[in-house]
Amino acid sequence: MPNTLPGFWRKTLAILGLCALSTAFGAYGQDFSNGKWLDLTHEFNEQSIYWPTAEPFKKTTVFEGQTPGGFYYSAYNFAAAEHGGTHLDSPVHFYQGQQSVEQIPLEQLIGPAVVIDISKKTAANRDYQLSVADIQAWEGKHGKIPDGSILLINTGFARYYGDQEKYMGTVKRGEQGVKELSFPGIHPEAAGFIATKRKIKAVGLDTPSLDYGKSTGFESHVTLFKHNIPGFENVANLSGLPPTGAIVIALPMKIKGGSGGPLRIVAFVPGR
Amino acid sequence: MPNTLPGFWRKTLAILGLCALSTAFGAYGQDFSNGKWLDLTHEFNEQSIYWPTAEPFKKTTVFEGQTPGGFYYSAYNFAAAEHGGTHLDSPVHFYQGQQSVEQIPLEQLIGPAVVIDISKKTAANRDYQLSVADIQAWEGKHGKIPDGSILLINTGFARYYGDQEKYMGTVKRGEQGVKELSFPGIHPEAAGFIATKRKIKAVGLDTPSLDYGKSTGFESHVTLFKHNIPGFENVANLSGLPPTGAIVIALPMKIKGGSGGPLRIVAFVPGR
Ligand SMILES: [Zn+2]
Ligand SMILES: [Zn+2]
Repeated sequence: MPNTLPGFWRKTLAILGLCALSTAFGAYGQDFSNGKWLDLTHEFNEQSIYWPTAEPFKKTTVFEGQTPGGFYYSAYNFAAAEHGGTHLDSPVHFYQGQQSVEQIPLEQLIGPAVVIDISKKTAANRDYQLSVADIQAWEGKHGKIPDGSILLINTGFARYYGDQEKYMGTVKRGEQGVKELSFPGIHPEAAGFIATKRKIKAVGLDTPSLDYGKSTGFESHVTLFKHNIPGFENVANLSGLPPTGAIVIALPMKIKGGSGGPLRIVAFVPGR
Repeated sequence: MPNTLPGFWRKTLAILGLCALSTAFGAYGQDFSNGKWLDLTHEFNEQSIYWPTAEPFKKTTVFEGQTPGGFYYSAYNFAAAEHGGTHLDSPVHFYQGQQSVEQIPLEQLIGPAVVIDISKKTAANRDYQLSVADIQAWEGKHGKIPDGSILLINTGFARYYGDQEKYMGTVKRGEQGVKELSFPGIHPEAAGFIATKRKIKAVGLDTPSLDYGKSTGFESHVTLFKHNIPGFENVANLSGLPPTGAIVIALPMKIKGGSGGPLRIVAFVPGR
């Protein structure tokens, strides 16, 4: 007996070690066979949300129907501003010299999600801004935001996406529309906390902008982009994600020199 | 001793069982901590490859510089045909009633890669078409293409992408350009084999079209799309992938009713 125990533990620990290596969930290993993929992307159509001063999404038909060659064929052209619908904000959008969209490393666009739900606060106040206290309250429950996380803020506003007045506060276009914008965002102090006290890869939310609708200085954009943390805006379906445990994959259209662009963002939600 | 061995094996097997469950690599579980992400996407710019009759990619500046508000700001508009640069072909592109781009399930765009290299054959004949024999030769070495694979054909043409004449066979635009197209593709018989004898999720290659440049009937498109197998075209960096073992994630811009659209396609290549 005495000389079998060390052998038992040596082998058991060796197996446990292999197991830890091959699953390594701390570093976001993932078993895609147990769980589901969730699309966090609104589709692009004529109702897609754009800033009141921006060029909205347009799709035009090139051809649709039977060809003389005997086969069916359909094809379209499209045009839009970079910043509309579910899209990525590249750091160069608000900070000179920082990354444009094609320069963001893939590693920064893929990682474990941390989801902070502020939908109760935005239901009471549609101009609510995520605060440092909100982040600390989340950390009190779930532990410190792990290095390398993708931080997603669920304001609950994704459910208004089809209704522009509810979602943005106005249907007006142009400068008059900008003045009437009203939706929640990230407070500049919270942006500073995220950028300097935590080590996240990217931040996203389900409103048209990282800064709240009434912002005029866009301080949260500037602070995050100064630290090369890209933003995801008009994200969908955040209510389908757990506070931790999902893996986010956010792949923008690779526009050379782009300040942003259409984003397809998805999450894998592990089963139990 | 005799009564400790069963305990040892019971515990060891329980640990091994947990280990197998949590890694489950057979169903494309993946440990993202050991390996690297590879971008299989060409960037969109004024030199992006478009069909000679299609509207090329255009990016125009909305604003670039310091604002009166004291912060830097840059933003652009863009416009293009759906089918250019690294992009997805939706089944409805060549088959009425089939999926448009936003209707393709995410599960079909994410999966283990099978990479067939025909670059030696295309070096000898730039109008070469992947044959059933090429697929069978690959299977002779690596085993039958597993159900649920994403099939990628490496023609080696991605290395010509910056040189339109080498890549497509012509720099001419319009119908005259179409007549001079010359690049490799998938033979209609091989497309039929893939669509009916194997169960793959999607097929991609590093040329402008699933059918070779000299095709006029686009039979490979029609056959694959009849079976709701989407295509990835103008894919980059396929030479960086092993024949098996990589995971592909291919996320197109979510254009409602789109016959295709810009695609960001990436692969995770596991380490050893
Ligand atoms: Zn934006
Ligand atoms: Zn195409």
